Amino acid sequence: MPRLAFYYEFASPYSYLSAARIEQVAKDRRVTIEWRPFLLGPIFRRQGYESSPFLENQRKCAYMWRDVARSAANLGLPWTKPRIFPANSLLASRIAYAGRKEQWIGAFSRAVFHMAFALDEDISKPELMVALLRELDLDAEKTLRTAETTEVKIGVRAAVAEAESLGVFGAPTFITEKGELFWGNDRLDEALDASFVRIG
Amino acid sequence: MPRLAFYYEFASPYSYLSAARIEQVAKDRRVTIEWRPFLLGPIFRRQGYESSPFLENQRKCAYMWRDVARSAANLGLPWTKPRIFPANSLLASRIAYAGRKEQWIGAFSRAVFHMAFALDEDISKPELMVALLRELDLDAEKTLRTAETTEVKIGVRAAVAEAESLGVFGAPTFITEKGELFWGNDRLDEALDASFVRIG
Repeated sequence: MPRLAFYYEFASPYSYLSAARIEQVAKDRRVTIEWRPFLLGPIFRRQGYESSPFLENQRKCAYMWRDVARSAANLGLPWTKPRIFPANSLLASRIAYAGRKEQWIGAFSRAVFHMAFALDEDISKPELMVALLRELDLDAEKTLRTAETTEVKIGVRAAVAEAESLGVFGAPTFITEKGELFWGNDRLDEALDASFVRIG
Repeated sequence: MPRLAFYYEFASPYSYLSAARIEQVAKDRRVTIEWRPFLLGPIFRRQGYESSPFLENQRKCAYMWRDVARSAANLGLPWTKPRIFPANSLLASRIAYAGRKEQWIGAFSRAVFHMAFALDEDISKPELMVALLRELDLDAEKTLRTAETTEVKIGVRAAVAEAESLGVFGAPTFITEKGELFWGNDRLDEALDASFVRIG
């Protein structure tokens, strides 16, 4: 099956919109998703932003919140505008990075996004992550310990550097096996189309 | 018929993608388009940008050119990456503003965009505008003189201020009669859907 790399950031509302449905739409098209959690913060800072670029432009930011709410409604997804934006997604990203090749990565990632953007919970809280991992029938303490190892911490940094080297500047981003990059929830379908190995 | 205001800037590649098809798709849905030419330059400058925000982020800019080329291909539209970006669209915008309520506004706007993004012609040249107006069977000299009147010059400035006051921060932007704003060529269909007066 063709593969599509899905670069997502837990603080990104548009990543939520893609994460919630990507496995289903990819399955329908027989494309395998590689979950690639990363952090936008370091990339934005290197681009010269203090925080999310959305916060630098008041009009654009106001529009973004309206647009995400409408898009969530169109996709039938629950939505609550978060009180704190952008969220501190470091811990959740480390757990996701540690589990990126595990069976539970999709369910875990969707659950974190649901906490952040449907329930407006603070995903930086370790106790929330513990509760969430337990609900997935995982060894929560062990998973948290793994997430805080030097190996995983360095791994997340490497994932950010790798994303940046591939041209990623925002989230969600989809990259096909041929290296074609698509940015934004609006490009998920196009990215899946481009993932197919065309014969003849 | 419900109306949809279409804010466009001749230097904007994504405005080209919308302008090329908006009258046809609007007709199919029985929505009337109000052509609202404006300038992004003054808005970008007030936002703190020196030029187009695209030029401030190398990765995003590289992606934008790739994305526009793909989107044009998907829509069956000719595309040439312009050698000069952003183009000086002042003269074309003044002509469009002067003719914004005329029968020829759609044909004129499409022709300017075609010059800019299919043929990579310099749309700031008065002789190009003259040729283009003549092809539309208009009195080119008279139209140019009108476009350079103080009334039109001030009118374009007022159009920019009006767009800004409505929350416009980029192009294309679509605003429904109820004041709902949609940004980007990707939102044209959604904007048309939202234009319908829903009864009951």
